[in-house]
Amino acid sequence: MTQPSSTPQPLDIAPATGRLGLLMPGMGAVSTTTIAGIMAARQGLAAPIGSLTQMAHIRLGRREEGRNPMIKDFAPLAGMDDMAFGGWDPISANALEAARTCGVLQEADLAPISGEMEGVTSMPAVFDQRWVSKLEGIRVKEGANKWDLAQQLVEDIARFKEEENCDRLVMVWTGSTEAYQVESDVHADPDAFEAGMKANDPNISPSQMYAWAALSSGVPFANGAPNLAVDTPWAAMLAAERGVPFTGKDFKTGQTLMKTILAPGFKARMLGVRGWYSTNILGNRDGEVLDDPENFKTKEMSKLGVLDTILQPELYPDLYGNLDHVVRINYYPPRGDNKEGWDNIDIFGWMGYPMQIKVDFLCRDSILAAPIVLDLALFLDLAQRAGQSGLQEWLSFYWKAPDALGGIPPEHDIFIQQIKLKNTLRAWLGEEPVTHAEDE
Amino acid sequence: MTQPSSTPQPLDIAPATGRLGLLMPGMGAVSTTTIAGIMAARQGLAAPIGSLTQMAHIRLGRREEGRNPMIKDFAPLAGMDDMAFGGWDPISANALEAARTCGVLQEADLAPISGEMEGVTSMPAVFDQRWVSKLEGIRVKEGANKWDLAQQLVEDIARFKEEENCDRLVMVWTGSTEAYQVESDVHADPDAFEAGMKANDPNISPSQMYAWAALSSGVPFANGAPNLAVDTPWAAMLAAERGVPFTGKDFKTGQTLMKTILAPGFKARMLGVRGWYSTNILGNRDGEVLDDPENFKTKEMSKLGVLDTILQPELYPDLYGNLDHVVRINYYPPRGDNKEGWDNIDIFGWMGYPMQIKVDFLCRDSILAAPIVLDLALFLDLAQRAGQSGLQEWLSFYWKAPDALGGIPPEHDIFIQQIKLKNTLRAWLGEEPVTHAEDE
Amino acid sequence: MTQPSSTPQPLDIAPATGRLGLLMPGMGAVSTTTIAGIMAARQGLAAPIGSLTQMAHIRLGRREEGRNPMIKDFAPLAGMDDMAFGGWDPISANALEAARTCGVLQEADLAPISGEMEGVTSMPAVFDQRWVSKLEGIRVKEGANKWDLAQQLVEDIARFKEEENCDRLVMVWTGSTEAYQVESDVHADPDAFEAGMKANDPNISPSQMYAWAALSSGVPFANGAPNLAVDTPWAAMLAAERGVPFTGKDFKTGQTLMKTILAPGFKARMLGVRGWYSTNILGNRDGEVLDDPENFKTKEMSKLGVLDTILQPELYPDLYGNLDHVVRINYYPPRGDNKEGWDNIDIFGWMGYPMQIKVDFLCRDSILAAPIVLDLALFLDLAQRAGQSGLQEWLSFYWKAPDALGGIPPEHDIFIQQIKLKNTLRAWLGEEPVTHAEDE
Amino acid sequence: MTQPSSTPQPLDIAPATGRLGLLMPGMGAVSTTTIAGIMAARQGLAAPIGSLTQMAHIRLGRREEGRNPMIKDFAPLAGMDDMAFGGWDPISANALEAARTCGVLQEADLAPISGEMEGVTSMPAVFDQRWVSKLEGIRVKEGANKWDLAQQLVEDIARFKEEENCDRLVMVWTGSTEAYQVESDVHADPDAFEAGMKANDPNISPSQMYAWAALSSGVPFANGAPNLAVDTPWAAMLAAERGVPFTGKDFKTGQTLMKTILAPGFKARMLGVRGWYSTNILGNRDGEVLDDPENFKTKEMSKLGVLDTILQPELYPDLYGNLDHVVRINYYPPRGDNKEGWDNIDIFGWMGYPMQIKVDFLCRDSILAAPIVLDLALFLDLAQRAGQSGLQEWLSFYWKAPDALGGIPPEHDIFIQQIKLKNTLRAWLGEEPVTHAEDE
Repeated sequence: MTQPSSTPQPLDIAPATGRLGLLMPGMGAVSTTTIAGIMAARQGLAAPIGSLTQMAHIRLGRREEGRNPMIKDFAPLAGMDDMAFGGWDPISANALEAARTCGVLQEADLAPISGEMEGVTSMPAVFDQRWVSKLEGIRVKEGANKWDLAQQLVEDIARFKEEENCDRLVMVWTGSTEAYQVESDVHADPDAFEAGMKANDPNISPSQMYAWAALSSGVPFANGAPNLAVDTPWAAMLAAERGVPFTGKDFKTGQTLMKTILAPGFKARMLGVRGWYSTNILGNRDGEVLDDPENFKTKEMSKLGVLDTILQPELYPDLYGNLDHVVRINYYPPRGDNKEGWDNIDIFGWMGYPMQIKVDFLCRDSILAAPIVLDLALFLDLAQRAGQSGLQEWLSFYWKAPDALGGIPPEHDIFIQQIKLKNTLRAWLGEEPVTHAEDE
Repeated sequence: MTQPSSTPQPLDIAPATGRLGLLMPGMGAVSTTTIAGIMAARQGLAAPIGSLTQMAHIRLGRREEGRNPMIKDFAPLAGMDDMAFGGWDPISANALEAARTCGVLQEADLAPISGEMEGVTSMPAVFDQRWVSKLEGIRVKEGANKWDLAQQLVEDIARFKEEENCDRLVMVWTGSTEAYQVESDVHADPDAFEAGMKANDPNISPSQMYAWAALSSGVPFANGAPNLAVDTPWAAMLAAERGVPFTGKDFKTGQTLMKTILAPGFKARMLGVRGWYSTNILGNRDGEVLDDPENFKTKEMSKLGVLDTILQPELYPDLYGNLDHVVRINYYPPRGDNKEGWDNIDIFGWMGYPMQIKVDFLCRDSILAAPIVLDLALFLDLAQRAGQSGLQEWLSFYWKAPDALGGIPPEHDIFIQQIKLKNTLRAWLGEEPVTHAEDE
Repeated sequence: MTQPSSTPQPLDIAPATGRLGLLMPGMGAVSTTTIAGIMAARQGLAAPIGSLTQMAHIRLGRREEGRNPMIKDFAPLAGMDDMAFGGWDPISANALEAARTCGVLQEADLAPISGEMEGVTSMPAVFDQRWVSKLEGIRVKEGANKWDLAQQLVEDIARFKEEENCDRLVMVWTGSTEAYQVESDVHADPDAFEAGMKANDPNISPSQMYAWAALSSGVPFANGAPNLAVDTPWAAMLAAERGVPFTGKDFKTGQTLMKTILAPGFKARMLGVRGWYSTNILGNRDGEVLDDPENFKTKEMSKLGVLDTILQPELYPDLYGNLDHVVRINYYPPRGDNKEGWDNIDIFGWMGYPMQIKVDFLCRDSILAAPIVLDLALFLDLAQRAGQSGLQEWLSFYWKAPDALGGIPPEHDIFIQQIKLKNTLRAWLGEEPVTHAEDE
Repeated sequence: MTQPSSTPQPLDIAPATGRLGLLMPGMGAVSTTTIAGIMAARQGLAAPIGSLTQMAHIRLGRREEGRNPMIKDFAPLAGMDDMAFGGWDPISANALEAARTCGVLQEADLAPISGEMEGVTSMPAVFDQRWVSKLEGIRVKEGANKWDLAQQLVEDIARFKEEENCDRLVMVWTGSTEAYQVESDVHADPDAFEAGMKANDPNISPSQMYAWAALSSGVPFANGAPNLAVDTPWAAMLAAERGVPFTGKDFKTGQTLMKTILAPGFKARMLGVRGWYSTNILGNRDGEVLDDPENFKTKEMSKLGVLDTILQPELYPDLYGNLDHVVRINYYPPRGDNKEGWDNIDIFGWMGYPMQIKVDFLCRDSILAAPIVLDLALFLDLAQRAGQSGLQEWLSFYWKAPDALGGIPPEHDIFIQQIKLKNTLRAWLGEEPVTHAEDE
């Protein structure tokens, strides 16, 4: 839609009237931290740090024009005040209880919003230990087969919308990483998928059933974990059919975030990379789940892809063609909900001389993921009101393993992702792209 | 010159016929490593890693077009085979002796090029211990006053050009950091500066005299150190008058390189930064020079400016308005010519929760600087042949403290710098800028 | 007193009846953390972790005997329940206020003891900005001269003892580091020192006046900071005269603690050390005080001595004779009361091959110092009841810069210090020393 | 034998006349580095850094006596000049070839000793891929059964002794880590073991056959790897029967060396430890072997035991009773023969407040192991001449997993190990133990 060589035409975007409901399968550390932060921000208790929709400015026109509005003043986004929250969980009954179990937020930060948090109840979940062997579900839906369970989710969605008086909904998967799987026949198209649910096909995981329920209900969907949810053909076809936007996958936090910042830097300066060793220690439910090799494999696949697409070894074999990339995750209870990522990077420069970089990132997973959930909710809602459907590639900025349009490799470089996001917004609103050429 | 809204017109660029002479005041670790690497590359012994002009590709058109030539095949740059080398040094008599003293390169790497290196003699230098108290010059020019010394440099330049049979020259300052100074009256315009040299004005430093000699001789100039050389008015005026391009300053290597990679990442994700503590240990001549508080101050100023222009605290006071930035350099002989930079970064996210990042960079200063010298030489030569003069802002990519056009703050974000560099090349050669918008 | 070749005779130690008052000049982070922790431990709210007197066992006899009592059950120490607290401060009025200002302890930990803490009032201090230029005193004693001020301290001590119904007292300096000074004539003997106080000699610092008041009053004294307090002749002579034990100096916490753990390890294995670079970042009052070069010099002297006495370069010139030891401290407000010490250690082994070790210690100064204060109070009290006076070299375990008996260098190796401490206790109580010989 | 309460009687030690042969199964990085370093030291080209027998002093008597001879002048050790070298290897034919393959030493260090190194040929090895699946042997002995193979080793030993004109021999296992196994019936006594060899019992590994050949031949044996070699009953019984000393196991290098230095320090100060996460990256043959889970398990067992015996959680449950200890090893080719160990240690102090320590050790495995091999050879030879047989517990100083005398746990604290080693030497030579008591 953007035409660099003529004045861009803005899209016709419906206004953000009424309430926007945010539905999250998996009421754990990420979703409760998201909810708590939005509630705190609404009361002016905390700034929504990390959120582009709430904090970032966007430059318009040439730099001497000085036009630099906030994104939320430039694009017609829903406001935080107009948001309602809901979700499903196999363990916790409400967001307050879940937040306390997770231990991400201090009691002092939960206190002023505890009543409101308690009011966000979680619905019983579609859950199957086959996919997350380390967890034991106690609040689990029962049904004749997967089709029946998916219908229950569709009903949950409809009831939530009515009870919470929402105009529009968005769903963001905030549940655990599911066991590794590859695409199978049942994922080939919507008909195969529906038949599969009726036949209780073992290749259909809970996250896929949530995705199906969302897309079928016309609700945009984002997948915060690395498992297959909307990245097989049935989902793209169903989304196109119903005119629903979706995006994925795996929130870009912690070590991978660092990687997609650093690797473009090495490449910008044409420095070679001989090896990259990454280890993570984490002590929460996520760590426990990923201690299972099946679930780790899903995550590992998501994490390993990053470097290749940024560094382009096929184009730069001398620099990146012989790169040993090792990623490890270890369950280490003393770390609690915090996470620590240690990277060793072996680079080389002029005349092949080697250098080393060590990065120790003492990070907080949910703190980094929460603003992503908020941004995805608001941007997917914007996309839907702007008449967009299918894969939203411009949201690759938020993903560890961004889905890409057919045939073209995904973009992992966070700075190109950022330009793509901002230039897409500029294009939708009828502004010129920013090119940073000499005289701009 | 680039016109996003119409087809760009390419510049008229003279071909790179004949030989290009690279003159370097300061025949130390950086210049000898540069020369050795180019000689080794010419013999196919080592790849010129880190050099955009030699290694990088540039995408042209939309990504599906698949046009991705190397920069050196796209832009009419001089080739490494056509380069000649020269310089001045107050201590070493030739490049081989200097390279051995510095200890950057292993004997095994010097052996195959030792004869050629020995042939690069260094001319006696304009040197004054007032500006570099830790060094003692033994091969130093004598003259009636600074004007006389500058004339000797002008003669050196002319003689070198003739003897080495060069068609064009470029000068890159690879000498030590000079003591801190602020602009004074003598820097106001070329006349004041010339009068100052005749009056032996104490505010005129050696690097300024080299810059004057270069610009007066029509030779493009780049300043690899943080001291004032071409960043006061006389230089811009003289360059405009003579139609000579120049650029500066302070090669972006090591810790600052990391900073300009990481800071844009934090900002892209709207993560707050509360503090950034940087310490360096280094054991070479550079370390000894910077152990003097006067010289350190020049370097400190250069290093401290980086974060503010990237993070824009005026636009983001909540995120970057209360940032403690501390930079220290320590002379530590065990490190030898290698350098180590340790950074602690205190960031904060959602609801203000703090996180920490530690980066330990075991780097090699000269290895990182050498490809910059090569690129600057070739790009400045291109600019001159393309009829450009004055400050080359598009080369800010290479600088710790990039000079900027009047009134507009310099750009430190290495990724914006990279886009600017590439889009400038595209524009000069008549290609559309790349915007990474949704449908590109 | 210990006779390895015959059965040791125990000392005659008076019982620890009645109350022990702990007086601390400087009611800041260290002293309030000490008091709070003892109060919490008395209520069973927190374990006195880090305290040998409260937590450690001591092996007696041969290992197969299995005699391994706790130190507090083996030696007749005063109990925490019998302790009273007092002190002086130029800024804070009581321990609760001071603790809250310092920010070491969380509110949740202060709450259950807040009343008791508030009851520990601080007396107005002898304070002089000449020695700590970065602090401004508001609760400061006035007097005709230093002699008069010291007399006020003597009266404070006596009044506290009576009001708090104490049988015995101990004083531990927990104030800031004073500006650097060297010994002068006024420190030569008790008479010169008293005359100096009367003459307002500028070489007499507040900490020396506190030390004099303690020793004159028969109160054991320990110096937790690196400035001169009891390490000049007058103090040793006065202590001998009055029969009072004393010890110093500079609590061994953080980076120096690590150094005295690691260096003995390298030496045990005969690994060479080429360099040791240590940098600290800290953001509290201590950090601010040490940002003044005069105060930093005092601390630097204390920190630099450590390696030489452990590594013995005079005995091992090939291994430790060419060691660059650099120590830096930087005020960095984001770190708050926490401290971070980063060390780079360059070692070398077999055939001279180099290796590197990096240690990043995210520590808490006051948390590490508090149990030292408690131990020193109880051990000095024990020494006094055991009839010991003068320098207590067996307490070098606790010091960054241990004072030593004339002519013999101080012991810094924490493991030898530990053996010395335990074997001294064994000897005092009539037990054989432990030698770890083959058949023990 | 040492009697603290009376003058010690020295042992009767035979003089070190004639040549001492050092036999090493496994001619790889460790053994060739050991040989090269001894050869270089004999020529005065490099100091034998890291070796107590060659570099360390030992204090005798009270510190004021000033008696501080070198260990080699105090104890009647064999000299380096009197050593001969031999070994077995399934891959390399001689020490020079092996050293070049390993890449530990630079060519410049091998050049002056290359002839001598080439003269150290390796005999074909007893090798079985069942125990080291990642290696492929090409120089492998064949035999009817394990008994037959062991007899071939016995013959190799005898022939080497004669050909090299040795008076005495020592064997140190420097081969790879074998796959994990537990003790079985075949290890119960020498008869069972011999019968097992004849029956080709699958529980008998190559390292055990080498140990049997050594002990049977009256040759002291040390086990540098973590697999079972001499730590089952048959070996102790055979050693007693033949009067041969032995010791083990697993050279204490790198990360475990650090651990046994740091952990005693935390314990000395009664600081709690909540967790210790250790990861290693290495790129050599050792790394490849340990990439196999079976071989890693053997190593992991050896590494995990360290903390418990130092920290004594049974005595200090509050401090060390809830400690998560995780050890990982990763094969990472870019590291080459160097090794990097990264540790995160979670400690806690006063009132339970947490602190963190990160240690990054850029080490060199073989450089750290080589002096251990030399010391073990000389000390085992001394023990044999002093009439000692069986387990030499005083050599635990050198081991990651020291074997201990029945019923008593092994000592891991490197400082207690060091005292034990030195006080044992003092006792054997008739000197008083050093106790570091107050008046010493």
